[in-house]
Amino acid sequence: MNAPNEPVPIVSDGLVRVRLDLGYDGTDFAGWARQPGRRTVEGVLSAALGTALRLDPSPRLTVAGRTDAGVHARGQVAHADLPDACAVDLADLTYRLRGLLPDEVRVRSARIAPPGFDARFAAIFRRYAYRVCDDPAGLDPLRRRDVLWNRHLLDVDAMNTAAVALVGEHDFAAYCRPRGGASTVRHLQRLTWARGASDDGVLEATVVADAFCHNQVRAMVGALLAVGEGRRPVTWPGEVLAVGSRDPGVRVVPAHGLTLVEVGYPPDDRLAERVRQARRPRPARPPEPLAN
Amino acid sequence: MNAPNEPVPIVSDGLVRVRLDLGYDGTDFAGWARQPGRRTVEGVLSAALGTALRLDPSPRLTVAGRTDAGVHARGQVAHADLPDACAVDLADLTYRLRGLLPDEVRVRSARIAPPGFDARFAAIFRRYAYRVCDDPAGLDPLRRRDVLWNRHLLDVDAMNTAAVALVGEHDFAAYCRPRGGASTVRHLQRLTWARGASDDGVLEATVVADAFCHNQVRAMVGALLAVGEGRRPVTWPGEVLAVGSRDPGVRVVPAHGLTLVEVGYPPDDRLAERVRQARRPRPARPPEPLAN
Repeated sequence: MNAPNEPVPIVSDGLVRVRLDLGYDGTDFAGWARQPGRRTVEGVLSAALGTALRLDPSPRLTVAGRTDAGVHARGQVAHADLPDACAVDLADLTYRLRGLLPDEVRVRSARIAPPGFDARFAAIFRRYAYRVCDDPAGLDPLRRRDVLWNRHLLDVDAMNTAAVALVGEHDFAAYCRPRGGASTVRHLQRLTWARGASDDGVLEATVVADAFCHNQVRAMVGALLAVGEGRRPVTWPGEVLAVGSRDPGVRVVPAHGLTLVEVGYPPDDRLAERVRQARRPRPARPPEPLAN
Repeated sequence: MNAPNEPVPIVSDGLVRVRLDLGYDGTDFAGWARQPGRRTVEGVLSAALGTALRLDPSPRLTVAGRTDAGVHARGQVAHADLPDACAVDLADLTYRLRGLLPDEVRVRSARIAPPGFDARFAAIFRRYAYRVCDDPAGLDPLRRRDVLWNRHLLDVDAMNTAAVALVGEHDFAAYCRPRGGASTVRHLQRLTWARGASDDGVLEATVVADAFCHNQVRAMVGALLAVGEGRRPVTWPGEVLAVGSRDPGVRVVPAHGLTLVEVGYPPDDRLAERVRQARRPRPARPPEPLAN
C-alpha cells in the first residue's frame, strides 16, 4: 500500500498500475497466456479481477514469466492498469480474490506499483526451480504434481560440473524453440543442483537468468539429466551450446517439474531505466570480445 | 527379498506373508478401509494385487494405520497372506503395481515378511506429521493438498509448552471419538512443533505414539492451535486431558493436513512377543502409581 498523502502514480488517462504477486498450481491450466476456449491462469485471474472490481471488459494483465502448460509458480508477478477509482479498493482486493479464484491460484498481494514499474520489462532476473526424484522406490505421491520421477540414479556432482559451461551470456539457440527471428541471447546467471536435506530422493535445480527463451530451462535440464545418468559426458551440454542449433539428443523434460520461484526488480528509482534497457532489441549474438 | 536358501516363512496352509511399504495422496479417497461403493486405498490396492497376482478374490490386507478420508501416508505398512506360489513373483511386483495403481498410490516395496510379523499388531510406534501454514498472504497452491491454512499467526513456543502435558501414558478419552467400550489409554511418545527452514510459513507437528485413538491427532492439534492463536492459555490442553471427556471447545482440524510418516517395528526376533503384548486388552485406565 502507498503511504497516506503519497500521490498515486497515474499511468495515463486516469489509470493506475497495480502490481500483483501470485502463485499457482499449473497442473490443470493450459499455461499462463489467455487462449480462446482454454482454461489459463491469465484467463481465470483476469475474470476474477473483473468480477471483484466490476470492470467489463475484465482487465488485461502483463506478466513477468509466461509459463507453459503444466508449469507452476510461487513468485509470479503481473501488473494491470486499472481505473484509479479501483485503487481505493485494493486493501481488501486480495481477500475478495480468495473467494473468487479456484484454490489452485493464490494472489498474495495487490498494491499500487511504483512509477516506472512494468512486471515484464522491469524484471532483472527470473529464478526457476526444477525438481527431480531419483529414488528407485518411486516418488512420494504428494509430490507427483511438482516433481519429475527419474528412473535412474543421478550424479549431482557431474551435473553441476556440466552446468558451468552454460553459465554466462551466450546464444542459447541450441536450447530454445526458435521464434521467428527473435534473439536467443540470454545471460544465465546461475544453474546449480542440490539434494534436499530429507531422504526423499528429491534434487532441485536453481536456474536464474535475466530472461529465458521458450523451453530453455526444460531443454538445459534434459541435457544435464543425460549427464547425471552417465549417458553423456560432462562436456556434452557445453558442446551442444557451442554448436548453436537444436540437437535432437537433447530431451525437453516434462513441464510439471518446473516452478517459477521468484522475479527480481531493481530499486524503485532505477525501474524506468531498466524498462528502457530491456525494450531495446538484443543483438542476435553476444558482442564479440575485442581483438587485441 | 529373502536371501537364497533362506526358507520362506509359511504362515499357514501354504500362505506366505508379504509386507508392503507404501505412500498415498489421500485427497480423493474415502480413507484406507474398504467400504462398499466407495473409492478407498485398501480397495484400490487389493484390486491391483488381485490383478497383478491373478488372485480372485483379491487378497485381504492388514494395515498399520487405518487412515481417515483425506489423510495421506508416506510410510504406511500393510501385509497380505498370499499363496506361496506368488512369492517367486515378488521381485517385479512393485513394478507391475506401478502400472496398475493410480499415481496417487505408490507401493515402494513388497517383500516376504519375517516370521511373526504383523503390520498392525507388531508395530511399536506410529509417527504422524500435521502441517499448518500461518502466512497471512496465504498458502502456496502446490501445498494445498497436505497443508492446512490458518488465518491467524501461531506462537510455536506456546504450542510446544502446552504439548508437554499431553506426552506420556494417559487416558485420551478427551481427545478421542469414543468407540464402544474400547480403551482410550495410549502412550504419546512425542508431540512437538517446528517451523521449516524456508520462509513459506509452514510449521509441522511431529506426533508419535504406540497407537492412536480415532481422531486423536486431529483433536490434539486443534487444541494446540487454539493455544498458538492465543485464544486459550497454555495450560488448557492439559486441563482438557485431565477432565477425561470430550470438550466441545476442542476443534478437530481438517484431515488434509495429516500424513502418516512412519511405522516402527521391533527387531525381527522380538516381533512375536510384541504381537502377543499388543493383542492383550489394555486396561481402561493407566495403572495407578503405587501408594508408598
